[in-house]
Amino acid sequence: MKKTALIMAGGRGERFWPQSRMDMPKQFLSLTGDGKTMIQLTVERIRTLVELEDIFIATNENYRELVKAQLPGLPEENILCEPIGRNTAPCIGLGAEHIFRRCGDALMLVLPSDHLIKYNSIFCQALEDACAVAERGENLVTLGITPNNPDTGYGYIKFDPSQTLDRAFRVERFVEKPDLETAKSYLASHEYLWNSGMFIWRTSTILANLKRYLPDMYEGLERIGEAIGTPEQEPVLEREFRAFKSVSIDYGVMEKAENIYCLAGNFGWDDVGSWLAVSRIRKTNEFGNVVNGNVVTIDTKRSIIQGGDKLIATVGLRDIIIVDTDDAILICDKDSAGDIKKVLENLRICNKYQYL
Amino acid sequence: MKKTALIMAGGRGERFWPQSRMDMPKQFLSLTGDGKTMIQLTVERIRTLVELEDIFIATNENYRELVKAQLPGLPEENILCEPIGRNTAPCIGLGAEHIFRRCGDALMLVLPSDHLIKYNSIFCQALEDACAVAERGENLVTLGITPNNPDTGYGYIKFDPSQTLDRAFRVERFVEKPDLETAKSYLASHEYLWNSGMFIWRTSTILANLKRYLPDMYEGLERIGEAIGTPEQEPVLEREFRAFKSVSIDYGVMEKAENIYCLAGNFGWDDVGSWLAVSRIRKTNEFGNVVNGNVVTIDTKRSIIQGGDKLIATVGLRDIIIVDTDDAILICDKDSAGDIKKVLENLRICNKYQYL
Repeated sequence: MKKTALIMAGGRGERFWPQSRMDMPKQFLSLTGDGKTMIQLTVERIRTLVELEDIFIATNENYRELVKAQLPGLPEENILCEPIGRNTAPCIGLGAEHIFRRCGDALMLVLPSDHLIKYNSIFCQALEDACAVAERGENLVTLGITPNNPDTGYGYIKFDPSQTLDRAFRVERFVEKPDLETAKSYLASHEYLWNSGMFIWRTSTILANLKRYLPDMYEGLERIGEAIGTPEQEPVLEREFRAFKSVSIDYGVMEKAENIYCLAGNFGWDDVGSWLAVSRIRKTNEFGNVVNGNVVTIDTKRSIIQGGDKLIATVGLRDIIIVDTDDAILICDKDSAGDIKKVLENLRICNKYQYL
Repeated sequence: MKKTALIMAGGRGERFWPQSRMDMPKQFLSLTGDGKTMIQLTVERIRTLVELEDIFIATNENYRELVKAQLPGLPEENILCEPIGRNTAPCIGLGAEHIFRRCGDALMLVLPSDHLIKYNSIFCQALEDACAVAERGENLVTLGITPNNPDTGYGYIKFDPSQTLDRAFRVERFVEKPDLETAKSYLASHEYLWNSGMFIWRTSTILANLKRYLPDMYEGLERIGEAIGTPEQEPVLEREFRAFKSVSIDYGVMEKAENIYCLAGNFGWDDVGSWLAVSRIRKTNEFGNVVNGNVVTIDTKRSIIQGGDKLIATVGLRDIIIVDTDDAILICDKDSAGDIKKVLENLRICNKYQYL
């Protein structure tokens, strides 16, 4: 069965401010230092499985030109621009409509554009295995990540180790971000995986599930699908999409659906969820620092210093994130990396939109 | 007796890097936020006691134009440029020669150019009291500061409370920077003052003491003095001054001399010895922060943030000093403020002189 992909690239990457900006969010940046942006790496990673003409990018109008520039071989009509962000269910529904009408009942890989994967061949093998399960009937397949610590920042997937299909386990349920004690018990049980937000299914399967669990949205999606290629395409999309409720695919479909399977992945996944990830994905020096740019460090440890031409001098710091850009500099304690969004809230309140 | 002043303004102010630079050191900056520079405040403070034409500035050639620009009414010949920094004894000797040859046996106030004083009228009263003691015979008078904490960053003056002259106490000895336990015992004894580096004496008295305790230097100073106003003034100064040993007035004279008196000052003195002083001299907000410039703080406490147009965003910081300038930014833990000089050492080693 034909394999297609929907890469979700509409996010704003606020947790990587000030390098990530409204007009240049995280998925369009190179955070690994190898010069390739995250969306470029995402596309490159699956090219052995999916033809470029079968890769669709869900984003919004603001990023259309960035996608075109960064993915020059991609057919322009494969860039799907949402009129407004409505979380993942409408985004995936829009992608499924386009793919179904172009390719029929194809396999559909749903992937975020801003995750990193260290072992590409293992990842592609997991996708192949997932495709095999998705192809066999109306199965919804998700890639779970074997947790290596009781992280409270992820949702978890409870699977039933006694029920397998090929290399997949049957999913019992999706659970929200747990507290630390619960996360520790999950880790100890060996029956939980991190929810990576990567899904594999047939277009017919996801559309059937959307019809069942989100019927209003499904009707709107059908009207959008019918208008594709007609003069009405844009106005219908605009009208219908704006009317959608904001709902995630996890909450709207996965937590309710049957026949969900998961594959446990060990392919060096990192969602690069905050600046903290930089210490994991970049080389640290003997003091545990990740340093870029014109930097002098004195007695500075376990810090991330991301600069440019301007001299950054640090003295006596521990666990501090410093990110310098042309017009803004962030200085943040690692324990407070989650509060970077409060800076952005504050800037909005103060009408300092130029820094967003 | 005529009152004159020698203001010492040759320092490099390294502890205020990166705002203070080789070509614009601390004494020429406004750190109080009122727009007046420290040397301007120093001159203004004593104008009720000393005529402008009797105020001499000891500095070096690099800062001659800065002094002229910041003190426009000062006679140009009152700017004494040392060919090379040789600590305070040669500096004071040079000033004494100039003042003695211009004004004869006058009272001479020796003042640093980079200290702050909150209560000017009390300060001037202390200077008047000191002058009265200095005028009565060959007394060397120093202004001591009543310590309010066992600071280990200052030298101390031990006085004898039973021996007074007018409002002054006789000094028993000068002591170097003590350890914390010793400093605590000094504080408890009420017989110790901080050594402020401010002195009052007659030109004849200091020259006699230089002759006695630093005879080689004195001979060189005499040759410099004899050449003043002749075509030989500059070459003699250059030759003799460079030959001087580097020695402080404390070590070279005060620790050995007799007839030393001190006045205990409570005039809101601050030597502004490092960025930490900014929290004392500037208004702190409800979170204990001193904030200047385009700054957003989230959960940031007891920090000093000195910026400009560029946005500085801080998150989760405690006790951090941030100083942003056009070409360099410092981020320093308050406990490590003393290590800022290591940044400068590092920059010198790396030949990055443009940042010094």
